[in-house]
Amino acid sequence: MTLRCRAYQLLEGHPSPLGAAVRWFLAALIVVNVAAVVLETVPTLRASYAAGFYALEAASLSIFGVEYLLRLWTAGEHERYRGPLGRLRWALTPGAIVDLLAIAPALFLTDLRMVRILRLSRLVRIAKLGRYSLALRTLRRVLIARLPDVLSLSFVLLILLVLSSSLMYLLERDAQPDTFSSIPATMWWGIVTLTTIGYGDMAPVTAEGKLLGSFVAILGLGMFALPAGLLGGAFVEELGKARRLNREQRAAAANSAPPRCPHCDGPLPS
Amino acid sequence: MTLRCRAYQLLEGHPSPLGAAVRWFLAALIVVNVAAVVLETVPTLRASYAAGFYALEAASLSIFGVEYLLRLWTAGEHERYRGPLGRLRWALTPGAIVDLLAIAPALFLTDLRMVRILRLSRLVRIAKLGRYSLALRTLRRVLIARLPDVLSLSFVLLILLVLSSSLMYLLERDAQPDTFSSIPATMWWGIVTLTTIGYGDMAPVTAEGKLLGSFVAILGLGMFALPAGLLGGAFVEELGKARRLNREQRAAAANSAPPRCPHCDGPLPS
Amino acid sequence: MTLRCRAYQLLEGHPSPLGAAVRWFLAALIVVNVAAVVLETVPTLRASYAAGFYALEAASLSIFGVEYLLRLWTAGEHERYRGPLGRLRWALTPGAIVDLLAIAPALFLTDLRMVRILRLSRLVRIAKLGRYSLALRTLRRVLIARLPDVLSLSFVLLILLVLSSSLMYLLERDAQPDTFSSIPATMWWGIVTLTTIGYGDMAPVTAEGKLLGSFVAILGLGMFALPAGLLGGAFVEELGKARRLNREQRAAAANSAPPRCPHCDGPLPS
Amino acid sequence: MTLRCRAYQLLEGHPSPLGAAVRWFLAALIVVNVAAVVLETVPTLRASYAAGFYALEAASLSIFGVEYLLRLWTAGEHERYRGPLGRLRWALTPGAIVDLLAIAPALFLTDLRMVRILRLSRLVRIAKLGRYSLALRTLRRVLIARLPDVLSLSFVLLILLVLSSSLMYLLERDAQPDTFSSIPATMWWGIVTLTTIGYGDMAPVTAEGKLLGSFVAILGLGMFALPAGLLGGAFVEELGKARRLNREQRAAAANSAPPRCPHCDGPLPS
Repeated sequence: MTLRCRAYQLLEGHPSPLGAAVRWFLAALIVVNVAAVVLETVPTLRASYAAGFYALEAASLSIFGVEYLLRLWTAGEHERYRGPLGRLRWALTPGAIVDLLAIAPALFLTDLRMVRILRLSRLVRIAKLGRYSLALRTLRRVLIARLPDVLSLSFVLLILLVLSSSLMYLLERDAQPDTFSSIPATMWWGIVTLTTIGYGDMAPVTAEGKLLGSFVAILGLGMFALPAGLLGGAFVEELGKARRLNREQRAAAANSAPPRCPHCDGPLPS
Repeated sequence: MTLRCRAYQLLEGHPSPLGAAVRWFLAALIVVNVAAVVLETVPTLRASYAAGFYALEAASLSIFGVEYLLRLWTAGEHERYRGPLGRLRWALTPGAIVDLLAIAPALFLTDLRMVRILRLSRLVRIAKLGRYSLALRTLRRVLIARLPDVLSLSFVLLILLVLSSSLMYLLERDAQPDTFSSIPATMWWGIVTLTTIGYGDMAPVTAEGKLLGSFVAILGLGMFALPAGLLGGAFVEELGKARRLNREQRAAAANSAPPRCPHCDGPLPS
Repeated sequence: MTLRCRAYQLLEGHPSPLGAAVRWFLAALIVVNVAAVVLETVPTLRASYAAGFYALEAASLSIFGVEYLLRLWTAGEHERYRGPLGRLRWALTPGAIVDLLAIAPALFLTDLRMVRILRLSRLVRIAKLGRYSLALRTLRRVLIARLPDVLSLSFVLLILLVLSSSLMYLLERDAQPDTFSSIPATMWWGIVTLTTIGYGDMAPVTAEGKLLGSFVAILGLGMFALPAGLLGGAFVEELGKARRLNREQRAAAANSAPPRCPHCDGPLPS
Repeated sequence: MTLRCRAYQLLEGHPSPLGAAVRWFLAALIVVNVAAVVLETVPTLRASYAAGFYALEAASLSIFGVEYLLRLWTAGEHERYRGPLGRLRWALTPGAIVDLLAIAPALFLTDLRMVRILRLSRLVRIAKLGRYSLALRTLRRVLIARLPDVLSLSFVLLILLVLSSSLMYLLERDAQPDTFSSIPATMWWGIVTLTTIGYGDMAPVTAEGKLLGSFVAILGLGMFALPAGLLGGAFVEELGKARRLNREQRAAAANSAPPRCPHCDGPLPS
């Protein structure tokens, strides 16, 4: 078994303790990175642990950089990316682009004006988690499968929102010209009411406005809860299926002959 | 194939690239119109793009006017509106009335006092979208089919609202005579609480009021989410059925003989 | 057919146009009465229409009084209330007690100090609607059938509420001693948060309080929506069954022989 | 039948009127204790009824102490805790630890500085209720069974929360530097919005922030309602099954031969 094949095995999901350790380490590093980006925005923490944050960023960039180069080097182990232009084709897959974006901030860190935005741009590393999380992969599949339903519902909700907000604007603009100043401004009231959040920064004060608000609240609340509920229900169902499939594959692998590398036919590390 | 038949084909849904283009253009024009009405209420946008808004309104009125006249002229192509009084019967259908209302503002624009209301009345054009959107047609069918359930639930909810608000008025009117000033005023609290919006403009402050508020909140919240949830669930189900039916009809049309006009028996434009 | 039997038929549900009219009139009178009680609490309306409210109350008391006496007189027409003590047994049924309470305010109106409470006590007339509304009867049946589930859930919710509020009190009492002044006071925060109402009159300000609040909000919200959702779902289901049964009974009655009074065997008024 | 066996029967669930009375008394004492802890935090109540609260605490400690000693003494009646180290094994079960914690405050009451925390620590007695409540036992089983689903969903929700809050921080920090001061601070806004609580202490004011807030609100609300809804639904289902099983066991016990003690084979108290 070649060294390149071995590296490929460790990064991609064939089951072996060392491979699992590598993948768990990379997933944990992403989580630590995201936590660091979040905590770094707290001024006291940024001041106290500046060196630590810097060291973590430097280490993460190195590791993610090496990971990217390794993936680029081993891409040819997968049948799909064999041949002369295989590496380029791999580099253009969504996963590879995310991997590149996750180390991209380093390339622009010389421009100090954009440093604030760049810091947060490291959050793109969350997308790298998709490779390791069954739940995130399931969510993506559900989102794509239910897109037509969600779009249809969104269209109906948008019309409901425009109509409610326009009427409310008509009824409240004379009583509260500063908050209900235009229909787009009133649409913020519409969203906050239809989703039943109710911050209280905008609320009707006239009797007509309250009457309209009552109808809008009752008619709309279930409708607005629906698109996400639809996705959520499908997500739980799909996740159950995916988990069962995963278990069956592992059981089948455990019952079959000792694994051999499908690429170079050498024995797989156990 | 006559010219009148051809115009009818383009406006009503027989499948042909040109017809689809005409219908997409009309649907897009409605969406642009609604967006314009909404954005025109923002003072800065109204000041900056007054000429643009005026031009769009003039163009839309012309196009919707021509569309209405064409529909009136070609109404006789449909079997239902043949004969001497066919056009009049067509003009009294809900769809035709909506089409007329959508161009009606132009007829009253001379009276300047009503110009503010008239501007918003152009939102009636949203109803014209019903002709092009499967989701909106499905929503209307669901609303009609579930009306008895919704009315029964609304009746129960209204009684729950009246009882909660009356009791809360009794408990809070002495502590907060300005906000809980009467039962109708307290019903605004009831709606805002039972739908779990909770703006915070009205909330009980006495211990008894808070105790009652707790019971009302728990008992009522699921009940108030139900009527809309009922409609929302039925909507998603019906939309799925309607979409499947649509697909089957298209597949059947694609497999059958080349289409001929059902009115004049001439070849249909492809 | 005796006069007493005829009166019984009109008040209780045997199908005849006159009986339906009498029952619709009584149901409408209740609705008008409730609306009057609600509107009378608005000071301006009470001042302007004092005479009208007084006349409506006087007329309603007379009609409901006559109705009560008629029901008492005709109680013996029903098999269950035949015999010497039949009327007394009827007078002690929940329906009869509600009917008596609905006219009771008149008996105490001489004591002026209680007049404010007495005015609202007329809302008990809402309970008289139960006789005429299929939806209200269904709701009562569902409430009784699902009581064990609701009690079990309420017990779990109460424990969740006590624990969340006690912890929040521990975390917030030093930062906000005036609002989070005791555990019972903090339980108002618990209810307002767990039901996702969120008035904003009480909210954690410390980091620990916000962390606890986050867990409480996520864990509790679905649980608190459940008891009412459980009832609501069962209500819609039961209502559908009850309506179908009603239709079948009417269809069966329409197909059978012309109706005869089951009490005096005289012909029924058509 | 030995005395130890009799005491065991009374404490553990074999059906007999006296045993039921003992268990009801112990359960009621827990409820009274929890109510006392809650009410004792109200300053006026603590001042007025100090002696009563003290007496209740002293009595409860004695009774719970005796209960613990009895349970320790009778542990050997259960097959699982027979043998030399049986009592120690029993003392390390979760139930026994909870029983010990419930009387632990008495051991530390000498240290006056911790008295405030100790007072609330008595709330651990709620956990003793688990022994008597079918609903609480069912909840625990459901929580354990659905843990993988809940964890997967929590992971997705956490990512959604981090992304929404980071973007909102980016958009609002310049307009409201005091409230949207860091990403962790903004995550409180995220939780309050995604659960639709909406206290109103933090809300976006910029147009971009409101636009992002609208998307976050609609996308996230159903997802955040899901984990608890999932648990709630499973809870009602499991409770129904557990209740049916309970009924069947009792019916089976009632139909079988008169009960004999399974430990000493003596007649069971009726």
